[in-house]
Amino acid sequence: METAGKVIKCKAAVTWEANQPFSIEEIEVAPPKAEEIRVKIITTGICGSDEHALTANLKDVTFPVILGHEGVGIVESVGEGVKDFKPGDKVIPLFLGQCDQCPTCKDPRGNICVLKAGKPAGLMSDGTTRFTCKGKQIHHFASTSTFSEYTVVHQHNLVKIDDETRLGSVCLIGCCFTTGFGSAVKTAQVKPGSTCAVFGLGGVGLSVIIGCKTAGASRIIAIDVKKDKFEKAKEIGATECIAPQDCDKPIAQVLVEQTGGGVDYVFECIGNIETMTSAIHASNYAYGTTVFIGISGLAKTITFDPMILLTGRTIKSSLFGGVKSKQFVPQLVSDYNAKKFDLDKLVSHKLPLEKINEGFDLMRAGKSLRTIMTF
Amino acid sequence: METAGKVIKCKAAVTWEANQPFSIEEIEVAPPKAEEIRVKIITTGICGSDEHALTANLKDVTFPVILGHEGVGIVESVGEGVKDFKPGDKVIPLFLGQCDQCPTCKDPRGNICVLKAGKPAGLMSDGTTRFTCKGKQIHHFASTSTFSEYTVVHQHNLVKIDDETRLGSVCLIGCCFTTGFGSAVKTAQVKPGSTCAVFGLGGVGLSVIIGCKTAGASRIIAIDVKKDKFEKAKEIGATECIAPQDCDKPIAQVLVEQTGGGVDYVFECIGNIETMTSAIHASNYAYGTTVFIGISGLAKTITFDPMILLTGRTIKSSLFGGVKSKQFVPQLVSDYNAKKFDLDKLVSHKLPLEKINEGFDLMRAGKSLRTIMTF
Repeated sequence: METAGKVIKCKAAVTWEANQPFSIEEIEVAPPKAEEIRVKIITTGICGSDEHALTANLKDVTFPVILGHEGVGIVESVGEGVKDFKPGDKVIPLFLGQCDQCPTCKDPRGNICVLKAGKPAGLMSDGTTRFTCKGKQIHHFASTSTFSEYTVVHQHNLVKIDDETRLGSVCLIGCCFTTGFGSAVKTAQVKPGSTCAVFGLGGVGLSVIIGCKTAGASRIIAIDVKKDKFEKAKEIGATECIAPQDCDKPIAQVLVEQTGGGVDYVFECIGNIETMTSAIHASNYAYGTTVFIGISGLAKTITFDPMILLTGRTIKSSLFGGVKSKQFVPQLVSDYNAKKFDLDKLVSHKLPLEKINEGFDLMRAGKSLRTIMTF
Repeated sequence: METAGKVIKCKAAVTWEANQPFSIEEIEVAPPKAEEIRVKIITTGICGSDEHALTANLKDVTFPVILGHEGVGIVESVGEGVKDFKPGDKVIPLFLGQCDQCPTCKDPRGNICVLKAGKPAGLMSDGTTRFTCKGKQIHHFASTSTFSEYTVVHQHNLVKIDDETRLGSVCLIGCCFTTGFGSAVKTAQVKPGSTCAVFGLGGVGLSVIIGCKTAGASRIIAIDVKKDKFEKAKEIGATECIAPQDCDKPIAQVLVEQTGGGVDYVFECIGNIETMTSAIHASNYAYGTTVFIGISGLAKTITFDPMILLTGRTIKSSLFGGVKSKQFVPQLVSDYNAKKFDLDKLVSHKLPLEKINEGFDLMRAGKSLRTIMTF
């Protein structure tokens, strides 16, 4: 059936208001307008940031909304003026777009495209949405809204990937994997032979481990209170694992002692303020770098004595691993296709969209690594 | 008169207890023991860290004590086993020593020599002091104690400089100049064409400006509440000056607006928590680096939302500009002798040691840049 130019009726997980379970609804997805692309989503992951959005613990979320930002799919149709995409292209939606026109996009150092800065949250560039349900306008989320069989994204928020790509776990490159991997290779720029520590062994933390290993780290210390995560961490590249509750000293002190002065690169992948503070203290006093990756949510603050940095410590942070999305994502997908890393190991559960609430419950209980959903 | 091997009686500014004025006293300086050198101090600067020590706002200070750590002098005699120094050598005492044996000294990245870590504060390696006054043992400070005509330092805390060096303002290389200059060229690694902002235009802030200019920064924005400091800042290399109290918006916002998104490198040279926070916010959201240089003192903490770093900001800090003292100081002195920079411009007052209390009062009132004292 030819669908281009027509409204598509399809299934989506709608969040009608904050802190409510997802509702599986039939929605209407309007055709893409100028510079937009309508994408059929094949798989999409569940991420902690969706939970932050769901609990109104993230800026720029307007309800009702279709969440989801870690997907992979196929172009269904394109709007006026779209030249880089055509129906049938395999694509990854990008919550962090790349316009190539704003100051950051033009600068090799940063990755926060600001073309959309200041525009109303949850709407396309023309100030409207492409989603309706039961006569109501449904908002977009993170420029992607992948918890829907079909979504519409701006061309700045989409990138084409190799035709040969198998559309399954590769959706993780849309958020979790790139965030973790990029934090190691781009933000921290882990050096060969160095020692790394990773707090939090969810999908992002495991992706950091893969990044550290790829960068040639010789020691990768994985830390989590949930010891059932250690086997996977070791399988992926961790050289040792520590459960803080098993130590008779604070974890930062344990790490300092085990490394003779602190860790070269420490990654916080939880978004917990206490762990962030431990991470700084665990970093080498003279040249250690701490990278904050986890999202702490709204109105959280960290407090520390700035003099703990004076001996030479650095604190860094980044979104999406600090990488420019349109440049890095296709390369990562090619590397995945070339089996340079195995994304399947990051996936603990596969569920149909109808079981999305179950998927979120698994994440909340810390019982899943990454859950991916199909339609 | 041959003094080697004998106790020297000389003048020193003794601090009998915290928060008391300096007392000019005749003290006895014992001969150097093994690996030690006795140095005749020619000039010494007054630094904010001496004030922190005086007010018991710094770790590792034991009273009574001889403060001062920014000096230059001439070797009077050497103890057993000293091979790198001989009487008559021009030298700079190093509060941050370099042993070349500890893990940090062996690593090219850091500069915090830890050979002395854990040893009692204010004593030489054998657990005693070389200073007595009125029958009482007087403690050393920062391994240097330059507020004395003669001092004794360990060979790890001393470096030889060019014989041709004029012994005046060059003492600033012992702390203030290297701290500021190194923060720009080593810690931040300022790139040509970049934009820098410097909070606090004392001796360290002005030295940062010289470092930024040397590194090729195209804009150097100098910030201070005291506008009488602007003329000197511009003379040295600042391209513009801002007094925060003259702005109708917070200074961070002013800087963000004037630079289209924030400053590439921001330097905090005051040690004020509020200014540190402003500095982070003033740094470019996507790739800005903030360097904490100022000493905030004991039990001070900074509080901020860690998510302000998530867009790509970095916080760094360092002591003594992050440079290895024995390698960098002689090179800086050579550069000074070659007139690559002018230290005299950082000196606002020259006083005899007897007027040391006046020198500290000038600093406390913000009326001096750097004051140097002679004997």
